[in-house]
Amino acid sequence: MTKFVAKGAASLAALSLMAVPAFAQDSGVPAETQYIFNTLLFLVGGFLVMFMAAGFAMLEAGLVRGKNVSMQCLKNIALYSIAGIMFWVTGYNLMYAGVDGGFIGSFGPYSFDAVGGNALDTGYSTASDWFFQMVFVAATASIVSGTVAERIKLWPFLAFTVILTGILYPISGSWQWGGGWLSEMGFSDFAGSTIVHSVGGWAALSGALILGARKGKYGPNGAVTPLPGSSMPLATLGTFILWLGWFGFNGASQLAMGTIGDVTDVSRIFANTNMAAAGGVVAALILTQIFYKKVDVTMALNGALAGLVSITAEPLAPSIAQSIFIGAIGGVIVVFAVPLLDKLKIDDVVGAIPVHLCAGIWGTLIVPLSNDGTAYGTQLIGIAAYGVFTFVATAIVWFILKALMGLRVTEEEEALGLDKVEVGVEAYPEFGVSS
Amino acid sequence: MTKFVAKGAASLAALSLMAVPAFAQDSGVPAETQYIFNTLLFLVGGFLVMFMAAGFAMLEAGLVRGKNVSMQCLKNIALYSIAGIMFWVTGYNLMYAGVDGGFIGSFGPYSFDAVGGNALDTGYSTASDWFFQMVFVAATASIVSGTVAERIKLWPFLAFTVILTGILYPISGSWQWGGGWLSEMGFSDFAGSTIVHSVGGWAALSGALILGARKGKYGPNGAVTPLPGSSMPLATLGTFILWLGWFGFNGASQLAMGTIGDVTDVSRIFANTNMAAAGGVVAALILTQIFYKKVDVTMALNGALAGLVSITAEPLAPSIAQSIFIGAIGGVIVVFAVPLLDKLKIDDVVGAIPVHLCAGIWGTLIVPLSNDGTAYGTQLIGIAAYGVFTFVATAIVWFILKALMGLRVTEEEEALGLDKVEVGVEAYPEFGVSS
Amino acid sequence: MTKFVAKGAASLAALSLMAVPAFAQDSGVPAETQYIFNTLLFLVGGFLVMFMAAGFAMLEAGLVRGKNVSMQCLKNIALYSIAGIMFWVTGYNLMYAGVDGGFIGSFGPYSFDAVGGNALDTGYSTASDWFFQMVFVAATASIVSGTVAERIKLWPFLAFTVILTGILYPISGSWQWGGGWLSEMGFSDFAGSTIVHSVGGWAALSGALILGARKGKYGPNGAVTPLPGSSMPLATLGTFILWLGWFGFNGASQLAMGTIGDVTDVSRIFANTNMAAAGGVVAALILTQIFYKKVDVTMALNGALAGLVSITAEPLAPSIAQSIFIGAIGGVIVVFAVPLLDKLKIDDVVGAIPVHLCAGIWGTLIVPLSNDGTAYGTQLIGIAAYGVFTFVATAIVWFILKALMGLRVTEEEEALGLDKVEVGVEAYPEFGVSS
Repeated sequence: MTKFVAKGAASLAALSLMAVPAFAQDSGVPAETQYIFNTLLFLVGGFLVMFMAAGFAMLEAGLVRGKNVSMQCLKNIALYSIAGIMFWVTGYNLMYAGVDGGFIGSFGPYSFDAVGGNALDTGYSTASDWFFQMVFVAATASIVSGTVAERIKLWPFLAFTVILTGILYPISGSWQWGGGWLSEMGFSDFAGSTIVHSVGGWAALSGALILGARKGKYGPNGAVTPLPGSSMPLATLGTFILWLGWFGFNGASQLAMGTIGDVTDVSRIFANTNMAAAGGVVAALILTQIFYKKVDVTMALNGALAGLVSITAEPLAPSIAQSIFIGAIGGVIVVFAVPLLDKLKIDDVVGAIPVHLCAGIWGTLIVPLSNDGTAYGTQLIGIAAYGVFTFVATAIVWFILKALMGLRVTEEEEALGLDKVEVGVEAYPEFGVSS
Repeated sequence: MTKFVAKGAASLAALSLMAVPAFAQDSGVPAETQYIFNTLLFLVGGFLVMFMAAGFAMLEAGLVRGKNVSMQCLKNIALYSIAGIMFWVTGYNLMYAGVDGGFIGSFGPYSFDAVGGNALDTGYSTASDWFFQMVFVAATASIVSGTVAERIKLWPFLAFTVILTGILYPISGSWQWGGGWLSEMGFSDFAGSTIVHSVGGWAALSGALILGARKGKYGPNGAVTPLPGSSMPLATLGTFILWLGWFGFNGASQLAMGTIGDVTDVSRIFANTNMAAAGGVVAALILTQIFYKKVDVTMALNGALAGLVSITAEPLAPSIAQSIFIGAIGGVIVVFAVPLLDKLKIDDVVGAIPVHLCAGIWGTLIVPLSNDGTAYGTQLIGIAAYGVFTFVATAIVWFILKALMGLRVTEEEEALGLDKVEVGVEAYPEFGVSS
Repeated sequence: MTKFVAKGAASLAALSLMAVPAFAQDSGVPAETQYIFNTLLFLVGGFLVMFMAAGFAMLEAGLVRGKNVSMQCLKNIALYSIAGIMFWVTGYNLMYAGVDGGFIGSFGPYSFDAVGGNALDTGYSTASDWFFQMVFVAATASIVSGTVAERIKLWPFLAFTVILTGILYPISGSWQWGGGWLSEMGFSDFAGSTIVHSVGGWAALSGALILGARKGKYGPNGAVTPLPGSSMPLATLGTFILWLGWFGFNGASQLAMGTIGDVTDVSRIFANTNMAAAGGVVAALILTQIFYKKVDVTMALNGALAGLVSITAEPLAPSIAQSIFIGAIGGVIVVFAVPLLDKLKIDDVVGAIPVHLCAGIWGTLIVPLSNDGTAYGTQLIGIAAYGVFTFVATAIVWFILKALMGLRVTEEEEALGLDKVEVGVEAYPEFGVSS
């Protein structure tokens, strides 16, 4: 059990709320050496997850039309920057300071270790922990960015990012990883199928509903016009970068590698994470061949991502076979959820809702298959709690922003493309992109 | 000597076939700390090599024409996924379980450490070893993917990948890294100039011969029509990603960094690997300037890769000067082998045969220059054994697939491009790519 | 104080010029374990910084016009290769061997540890140190490459790279990191705001002045014609790769992580580096919105890079708030310096002078804000010394190369584009790029 609340526990330890030192006794590894290994895990995991910002940027740049590519690039570098600042201003402490079984931490900016600081008893450098947790919050905002692309104005999106990363994600995150009420109830979400991915997906869903679909996407009588993305190689690159980053996302969520038990677990997580993605790809390949008589490369890419999201709630306990299965079902979900959203006229430009919300729910739900310490009922309660809170809270924020700033560009601006209208720099000025 | 069969030895240790514990006695580093360092080397090396899948995808996406780019992206993410699954289903055990001086391991899927497993005596987590070995097999299939691009059908290629990664590569790999007959004979291939790169190259060669050239590539009277790649920046990006990944490929093939001797060797390998690539670039720069009066950027990129392939058989023993020399000759080989293949009407779309097969042979052959424990004769036997086995076996597989499924799209389909015909998603739908 | 000359000190230790062993006594970590950690820091930091070569290549490929993209790719892979070779031939020893308070090291190629070498007393593998220092020198040359793009001939540029990376950078580097006169005076530049970035910027400035502007950039009466870059997603990707690499650039410049104090410092550096970049982005967003009524994505990208350059002189001592401030001023500098250069008709294609030179000066100057052991006066002396030496020396080299080889392509060649003229391979042959 401790394993599965380790994330919250370790961060609590960083804030000296736990008496027990985070390093393992009698492990054969000196405490100082453990401290270095644990910190190193956060640093390496952190830079891998940081690079996922590039992955989201490339995936989204590849999946929007050429006239909106600069905007998507801009939004991704801006949101990553804002997420970091907000997680310092309020986020970290709201999520991790003094939650104590409750619903929220405390307000105030975070400060970390002194130079050369020697707080051995935390088990790792608190700055490394902060860095690692910070890069997670950016992922949540990136998910939203993709769904609402090609029609949202820049500044309302950035304002939404401020609220999401500085307040909403940290509050709901505190329920589990901050040691709050869901963690006490026994909910389990190892690296964030729900806490990161579904939360991003719910925020994207409320945004898509409130914004409405892109002009021309849905015609009368259920007609759906495909608006193909501008660059498959960039989308592919983005997917591979995200896959790479996921080794940090899931692997370093073990939160420790200073004992042979912990580093062995990190190894299992690496292998399982990889195999779930592979399962998602193969499932999407086969299904699209069967249904469409051609293999759809965007489905294969989203299949990989859905596999990764699916295994994120429990990347440690499954066997390889279970990991492939969990990921493959993620891929199946994507193949069915993408046309379903179109039927509902919910316009999700990059497929982020199927990948992050739907597969995130699946991954969280299936945790008890491999992890005996969990229960389907509790998993459902957690999924519902995150869903209701995030959907309602983000809908309120979207509505307020709509009233204050307006969310959407005009029809003519949308036709012209956001790059000309809001960014002033076209993505491919020489390529005669059709507008 | 032990150093140079370390790869097989360590993996054997993972399977408890060796009594000797893999960690070093009297090294001043506690055994548990060594275990963590060794495992960490596999994990970091593993994610670097995993990212090479993105490198191959970008390199190939950049070097094929715009109408076949989505297909190339799809093939690369699909083959990486399939390779992982097959290396679990049969590959790992065929390669590493009970080879014992022979020609093949045993059948059956692989299972790794228990959660929190404490098998200190293996010297590292077996899951990390599996992860690291798994990413290697994908590289072999990626090599084939580039050569046979722009004309092969998707599903026969994927079927070939299943056989190559699940059966053929593991069997021939067992001869050396699994502790088989070549390893007992004293053949040396530190990180796989032959075992990975030439094997991929032989499979690509047999495929190119059986498939035939792209329509329009070779005219009458020896005329060769250049069919330039669609994006040099993507090809460049792919090359840099591969170069990055090679630090994991060669560096982590040391298989241990739990002693100061081992981590010093990893450092030498990093430096030598880098300098061989640099040598390959500079050689290609100078030669293409001399021969063509212009510097050919694709030759410079392939020069880097040829330098990397060349040093892979022995990245530890050479001095920096020797590494630059070994890599530079790799670059020279590419500059001469590319037009030679065209003269032979062997259509290798991305230059994978010169890079991986020719430079792989060179690198394997030159090992005794710096490594006293090896002999030119034994190196030649190894090169020949891998060549004959892989060329014949893959040719048989290609012929069977040709009979069962057909390998090649029709002439009209080839003219239209594989993206429209087989993938259904164009890579750059807005850019008015000429077809 | 020792902290802030640690770079020089450690490298001196590598050359056995210091009696004190580099590993920490009484730290609770066995000396051998420290050695492994320290070496690992260089290796991981090294591969991250190596990947910055890909970042520069993508940034520059995205910011030049389509007709010069192949050339920019070629220049970046060539300069990275040449830099490595030259840093072996002369660079490392000129910079680190026997400087002893003076102005220059000694001549001769570098050789590193023996295989399995056991020189515990250096505290790390000297090959890993060499690898890490080598990747820094390439960054300097990359900076120049961007500024002088679209008009310089290939071979004079490569000749300049030979001199810069083999002689000029190592000489001036020896003044500080080699333990030379500036280091004795108390100058402080933790990871190279001046020593790497401003040096590159000065070399770029002298090159831009001597080459002159691109045809058509500056008209009569102060008219400035924007010549937009060919691909914003590639420029964005390049920026993210550079950001990623900077964790190695700054983090591994701590030069040790074998004690809990050192690894804690590395963690602070990671967090501060990230937040300075975030500050630079947000500053550029806000300022361009105010001044131009649109947010300029290239300014946001350059804002990130300017933030990173700004924090590089002192990434350890600042608080998070100070780091955001230091980076944000970097972003402000870029927004003002870019149009200022245009007013002065200094044609800097990618904005490297504002980012690397101007922000580099700012970052070096502001070190005493957070680091008590430094003084504004000494910082100014160091900035001036590097500026005068590099500007004058590189100007002389540019003039000599101009006399010997000619620096610039003809007007017709410039109009045609360097890819056709000098590389012979167009970057996007199918996209109908306007020339």
